Amino acid sequence: MLDQTTTASHLESVQTQFETVRAFTESLCEPLEVDDFGLQAMAETSPVKWHLAHTSWFFETFILKRYERGFKPYNPQYEYLFNSYYNAVGQQFPRPQRHLLSRPTVSEVFEYRQFITSKIVNLLKSLTSEQYDEALSLVVLGINHEQQHQELLLTDLKYNLYQNPLMPHYRKTNDDNVSLYRKPVEHDWLRFQPGLAVIGKDVEADVNSEFGFDNESPQHQHYLNGFELGNRLVTNAEYMEFIEHGGYECSEFWLSDGWDVRQQKQWHAPLYWFKDGGLWYHYTLAGVKPVNDDDPLAHVSYYEADAFASWKGARLPTEQEWEVAARNQPVKGRFVDAYYLKPVQATEADDKLLQLYGELWQWTSSSYSPYPGYKPLAGAVGEYNGKFMANQFVLKGGSCATSKDHIRSTYRNFFYPEARWQFSGIRLARDL
Amino acid sequence: MLDQTTTASHLESVQTQFETVRAFTESLCEPLEVDDFGLQAMAETSPVKWHLAHTSWFFETFILKRYERGFKPYNPQYEYLFNSYYNAVGQQFPRPQRHLLSRPTVSEVFEYRQFITSKIVNLLKSLTSEQYDEALSLVVLGINHEQQHQELLLTDLKYNLYQNPLMPHYRKTNDDNVSLYRKPVEHDWLRFQPGLAVIGKDVEADVNSEFGFDNESPQHQHYLNGFELGNRLVTNAEYMEFIEHGGYECSEFWLSDGWDVRQQKQWHAPLYWFKDGGLWYHYTLAGVKPVNDDDPLAHVSYYEADAFASWKGARLPTEQEWEVAARNQPVKGRFVDAYYLKPVQATEADDKLLQLYGELWQWTSSSYSPYPGYKPLAGAVGEYNGKFMANQFVLKGGSCATSKDHIRSTYRNFFYPEARWQFSGIRLARDL
Amino acid sequence: MLDQTTTASHLESVQTQFETVRAFTESLCEPLEVDDFGLQAMAETSPVKWHLAHTSWFFETFILKRYERGFKPYNPQYEYLFNSYYNAVGQQFPRPQRHLLSRPTVSEVFEYRQFITSKIVNLLKSLTSEQYDEALSLVVLGINHEQQHQELLLTDLKYNLYQNPLMPHYRKTNDDNVSLYRKPVEHDWLRFQPGLAVIGKDVEADVNSEFGFDNESPQHQHYLNGFELGNRLVTNAEYMEFIEHGGYECSEFWLSDGWDVRQQKQWHAPLYWFKDGGLWYHYTLAGVKPVNDDDPLAHVSYYEADAFASWKGARLPTEQEWEVAARNQPVKGRFVDAYYLKPVQATEADDKLLQLYGELWQWTSSSYSPYPGYKPLAGAVGEYNGKFMANQFVLKGGSCATSKDHIRSTYRNFFYPEARWQFSGIRLARDL
Amino acid sequence: MLDQTTTASHLESVQTQFETVRAFTESLCEPLEVDDFGLQAMAETSPVKWHLAHTSWFFETFILKRYERGFKPYNPQYEYLFNSYYNAVGQQFPRPQRHLLSRPTVSEVFEYRQFITSKIVNLLKSLTSEQYDEALSLVVLGINHEQQHQELLLTDLKYNLYQNPLMPHYRKTNDDNVSLYRKPVEHDWLRFQPGLAVIGKDVEADVNSEFGFDNESPQHQHYLNGFELGNRLVTNAEYMEFIEHGGYECSEFWLSDGWDVRQQKQWHAPLYWFKDGGLWYHYTLAGVKPVNDDDPLAHVSYYEADAFASWKGARLPTEQEWEVAARNQPVKGRFVDAYYLKPVQATEADDKLLQLYGELWQWTSSSYSPYPGYKPLAGAVGEYNGKFMANQFVLKGGSCATSKDHIRSTYRNFFYPEARWQFSGIRLARDL
Repeated sequence: MLDQTTTASHLESVQTQFETVRAFTESLCEPLEVDDFGLQAMAETSPVKWHLAHTSWFFETFILKRYERGFKPYNPQYEYLFNSYYNAVGQQFPRPQRHLLSRPTVSEVFEYRQFITSKIVNLLKSLTSEQYDEALSLVVLGINHEQQHQELLLTDLKYNLYQNPLMPHYRKTNDDNVSLYRKPVEHDWLRFQPGLAVIGKDVEADVNSEFGFDNESPQHQHYLNGFELGNRLVTNAEYMEFIEHGGYECSEFWLSDGWDVRQQKQWHAPLYWFKDGGLWYHYTLAGVKPVNDDDPLAHVSYYEADAFASWKGARLPTEQEWEVAARNQPVKGRFVDAYYLKPVQATEADDKLLQLYGELWQWTSSSYSPYPGYKPLAGAVGEYNGKFMANQFVLKGGSCATSKDHIRSTYRNFFYPEARWQFSGIRLARDL
Repeated sequence: MLDQTTTASHLESVQTQFETVRAFTESLCEPLEVDDFGLQAMAETSPVKWHLAHTSWFFETFILKRYERGFKPYNPQYEYLFNSYYNAVGQQFPRPQRHLLSRPTVSEVFEYRQFITSKIVNLLKSLTSEQYDEALSLVVLGINHEQQHQELLLTDLKYNLYQNPLMPHYRKTNDDNVSLYRKPVEHDWLRFQPGLAVIGKDVEADVNSEFGFDNESPQHQHYLNGFELGNRLVTNAEYMEFIEHGGYECSEFWLSDGWDVRQQKQWHAPLYWFKDGGLWYHYTLAGVKPVNDDDPLAHVSYYEADAFASWKGARLPTEQEWEVAARNQPVKGRFVDAYYLKPVQATEADDKLLQLYGELWQWTSSSYSPYPGYKPLAGAVGEYNGKFMANQFVLKGGSCATSKDHIRSTYRNFFYPEARWQFSGIRLARDL
Repeated sequence: MLDQTTTASHLESVQTQFETVRAFTESLCEPLEVDDFGLQAMAETSPVKWHLAHTSWFFETFILKRYERGFKPYNPQYEYLFNSYYNAVGQQFPRPQRHLLSRPTVSEVFEYRQFITSKIVNLLKSLTSEQYDEALSLVVLGINHEQQHQELLLTDLKYNLYQNPLMPHYRKTNDDNVSLYRKPVEHDWLRFQPGLAVIGKDVEADVNSEFGFDNESPQHQHYLNGFELGNRLVTNAEYMEFIEHGGYECSEFWLSDGWDVRQQKQWHAPLYWFKDGGLWYHYTLAGVKPVNDDDPLAHVSYYEADAFASWKGARLPTEQEWEVAARNQPVKGRFVDAYYLKPVQATEADDKLLQLYGELWQWTSSSYSPYPGYKPLAGAVGEYNGKFMANQFVLKGGSCATSKDHIRSTYRNFFYPEARWQFSGIRLARDL
Repeated sequence: MLDQTTTASHLESVQTQFETVRAFTESLCEPLEVDDFGLQAMAETSPVKWHLAHTSWFFETFILKRYERGFKPYNPQYEYLFNSYYNAVGQQFPRPQRHLLSRPTVSEVFEYRQFITSKIVNLLKSLTSEQYDEALSLVVLGINHEQQHQELLLTDLKYNLYQNPLMPHYRKTNDDNVSLYRKPVEHDWLRFQPGLAVIGKDVEADVNSEFGFDNESPQHQHYLNGFELGNRLVTNAEYMEFIEHGGYECSEFWLSDGWDVRQQKQWHAPLYWFKDGGLWYHYTLAGVKPVNDDDPLAHVSYYEADAFASWKGARLPTEQEWEVAARNQPVKGRFVDAYYLKPVQATEADDKLLQLYGELWQWTSSSYSPYPGYKPLAGAVGEYNGKFMANQFVLKGGSCATSKDHIRSTYRNFFYPEARWQFSGIRLARDL
């Protein structure tokens, strides 16, 4: 049992983090018009308004409902409207129709957020010692869940605004201040020796240990052959070469399923790219910009990443290779609060392994599967990571839309191989 | 050539009508939240915002662009965004994606409307005598076009709001003030003798004659067998009988295509109806209400109307039969500006032929086809009525969402036989 | 009541017709391999085997089941397998899956046919006088039903064989013997005066009168404006001009629904046409052939027919116009038993109105609707013509795949406007 | 370099195997009617005729075309018609339309087979020593490829015949001779210790070594935690419990994607199962039979296998766990040439690990991915295993439709997780 001082300090730290994260979500909405909050261009993207409400629903459903004395739902229908996929909680409003919820209005959703935020703050102050550990774990889970939705809010918004031929921008970003020419970093290979590696982290019930999702555990051994890893992300210029050499027309570089998707969706370039007057442009959260040669290539699917790697005579790293390489590196990069909101070229040539974090999620060749001995969280809240362990691939590293205190080397993000609307890019690997 | 006084008075009358109709469109939006303007639940329904912009685009494209000296488009991209289906004008933004246009914002669209309204008013004042006739015809066409969109704005909105489990209402309506019990009118048959009838109206270039759409002309002869027509619309109680007698489960009453649609869409009752605790309720623009026995049945497809009529041993009238019966009747009813916004039971038992106008569009058994000798309007504006002359059925009469000065006995509305979201109902007919 | 001699002679004539038609169906299968009998390339086309079985099922279900003493079904599951769309009879095996019925085998189906044929012949000999009229009417209906399926068997087969890149032919046809050059007939307009016309025929219960389907009755009056009709069908050369002048790229000539279909299905020419080395070829039942300039254009949809007519400044005739023009003309042409199996150019320049029958079904602008006073046949057999009276268009005239004794001026064929796999062509009309 | 005697003996052995396998394919067709050869009920299943032709095409394209002097294609269009997915060879006739190829006829396809078989036999006799190694490797690859298609021929046929409500059987099978009651084997757990394991086999260019597909190599190390494996396959009785306890209605046991598929396809039991009078029956290649309690459960998807394991508090084995357990076990079972053609209950209780081979393919929890250092075969023939390494899961063991000399512990079969038409079943595993 922890002494009271530690507890108090820990509690305060969680409360601060909670309030900061809640406020940050709202600050992300500042540049938006009311008209923008309901946009949903495909089932996979949710309206901003829905993200705002759902993250509140999470705290209400998994924490207030359980620990608040005399709990009454804020609005009994919200349980249905803002449940994402928790079958144990109940039915869900159909995902592709979230854009049809003009009510509650944006301002009603902000009121709902305020209400839940205060309720949680109050609850934190009144937890009994029996509740303390579990409740705090859930709040920390809710904070991390909300950070995930912050990133989705931005990537979904980018996709949704992009459908408008007016190509409205979300906000001016910081990269406009960066000086125009910087010497690009040459691509190089870093070598890693074979051997048994320790992968993942043990996620403890102890609320004082660093947070990790259940899918990162348990820690276990994994044998790795020797391999080499690219020192930086693949650049736009490198990918343009692939395009110009007919990469999108040669089935031989593509996985069979990837080629089918490419045919069906008529892919000829990464998402958001288009050519005008012989030059490549792309849509960014700051509007349409020329594609910079030396910036990291973003918004490719797993299929494109894999085809590019094949064409290069290389391959994508496994998630274990990436983790072994990253484990002892510091978590640094241009995270979401830097407001670059797009990846920027590598420059820090003094480091060997560049752009691990804070630029782009990096596709690995690893299918998203349970680690040996994996157990999902108990209860309804456990319908989180485990139920998606088929047909998706692991991405590592975190992007320019991720929070710094949300990411670590053991973090396993996952998406379907055809997904392109995330900030996803490529780091190459090859066998020794 | 008309004398100057007549012209001035006519011009003034058109200008008044124009300003009134434009203002009425805007007044219809008063009860809405900004959040509501972008809703689009199916390709056939457009967002309120889009209706607001498209009706302005119509005046800009077909009138200002042609007659205004030094015309410059308000925004060159609006031509693409707010074109509905005029191929001669250019490409159109895909209809099912209109809900993705968060920009221009609602307030920008209102600014656009104001701008176009003033421009047209100014133009009217400065027309040359060469322009006069044609330009005024087009303004009158634009006014009638906007009135059509006023009705669609309401029917689309009803459908779109209905998707939300919160079932938000649009506005309180006048029927709440009506006294609760009124003696219902018995169904009766009115007899019409066989003979050659004159159908349609000649739409003149002369701007002083009453307006008519091109599809109502030319006037022509049509031979009719003797027939009988129902004195009033079919009521909810009569339709409930059909439901209770298994009308939705017996293919024998249904057209083959209708039965397929019913199977596929799992129809068991009219649109907006649901049962709760053994009682029928329906969603109205004033929210959820009990279904009143004696109110006219609304929101059925042609297929349901036809199946009901078969079950009754009757049939739907042809458009010619309806027109012959209505020709000498006054145009009276509860039109959109009465704000009932739902059909109300027949009471005026002193009239023989009740509820011709201002309650519900009445499905006829007539496929929407060109009248003998039909010619569409010249130019791009002619892509209006003629191009839809396949696969649709004619409806007559105008509804509680129609303007009184928009409707007449020769008016031909048309929809696909599976459409249910209009204020559409049933009047029966049978052979002598 | 008829005297016995008349009855005997009538009975004999029906029996002869019955046996002839049954045998002709089977003779149509002679050129086929067993492999061919199961082909089904789209839901609308049925396998040859299915046509063979379904036409027997019709006689079994509507006649034997009703009149045969001690009737037992040949195979109780056939009622489900070979029912087309008669809901009153029971459920139907799903239409798009008919190709999955490898059993009963082809030879089992031929056995089934033989069995039913003999049973009907026996039944005819043993009818009581109470049964006589009704039963004979049904046999005649069954004969006409089978003749319809003979035509479908050929048009479906053509479509199904065409999917095979080997482009197998069905059989060599008689047109190969026709001398190569014949002077084409110039297109001319024949004039018809306005007035009331008598349309349709009264279909009598009296079994001795000429057969007609229920949808041709009752005879009624219809007022026609004056009009002109093309003296012959539109030729391939005339249609090629339409293609070359960009007819398939100009939406202005097309109905809105037609343009949508054309976009979606990427139509650039009639069905079965393709270009090779700058020349047009088409697939025929005799294999691939060059497109002859002067032969009638075949295999167009209503939408193409209508677009072509618009481009020509003409229109399609109404079904009443066609019928009035044809009423006093002899029924002559190259019918199915001539084994041309494709339309051939007009040459008989001494007749004024050419190619009315036996070349191509001619699209009319008339939606397929009930005639005034129409009543479907009583009982399950009445689920035949009436239930399709929505969304289809009437075709007149009969084709090179129709039987001569099956066609007449009042005959109303009907197909959806996008259908192209029938032998359908164009005759133009215009207003006086 | 091998001496001549070895070479001759090896050559003779390959030729014998080649002729045996070719003849066996044809013998599998003996019970069929010509009508059956073209059936194709879904894109994933191919007609029997297509399997017969495609396996010949494989030998023609990859061997004769390369090594035969003066090679001429048997029919130049067959390259297009019977290419499965080899983009490097050229375009492919669309897979879902294979049922439309009534030509070549069945007898023409058998002629084609004979022709290719003789040509290969002749070629084997005339190989130069330069050609010898590579050509023989390709023939062995072709033999193994044909064995795969033998199994698919049977599983596809089962699925295709099943669509017919007549439920025709393929052939009487041997299990009808098995005595009715045998004592079932209790489910037990076998324990395996943690440690580094050697996985896969090195596939050598040396034609004398045992054959293996490229995806089984290279041999590599893999660290395994301790685990337990079920001693036998899951039985029908065990799975019925899952059904009866609502396994198909509880989303909590299912992967998210699996639950979606289950909802969409309305799964309530394994493929081929149906209930009649309270008893379970299933369709087998010998027709409809009662489901035997103690027979192994077959025809479940990965999703069902995974849900069942979750419900049991167990999991599916990884492919490495299965391989480690099987490595030293003999390859014995009821393979295809025993003509059971369905799995049969475990009885050999003296063995500890039962039913490894020759009953059912066993789903593993391993996504089908490249082994570390994996390289596909060079050339067009390399478009075989590597291009499918996404979205599929590995199955181990071989089934009652597999050839004994085709299977081994390192063999990796793979299917999409929703596939149910293979002979696929469940073996459970759990952590130590």
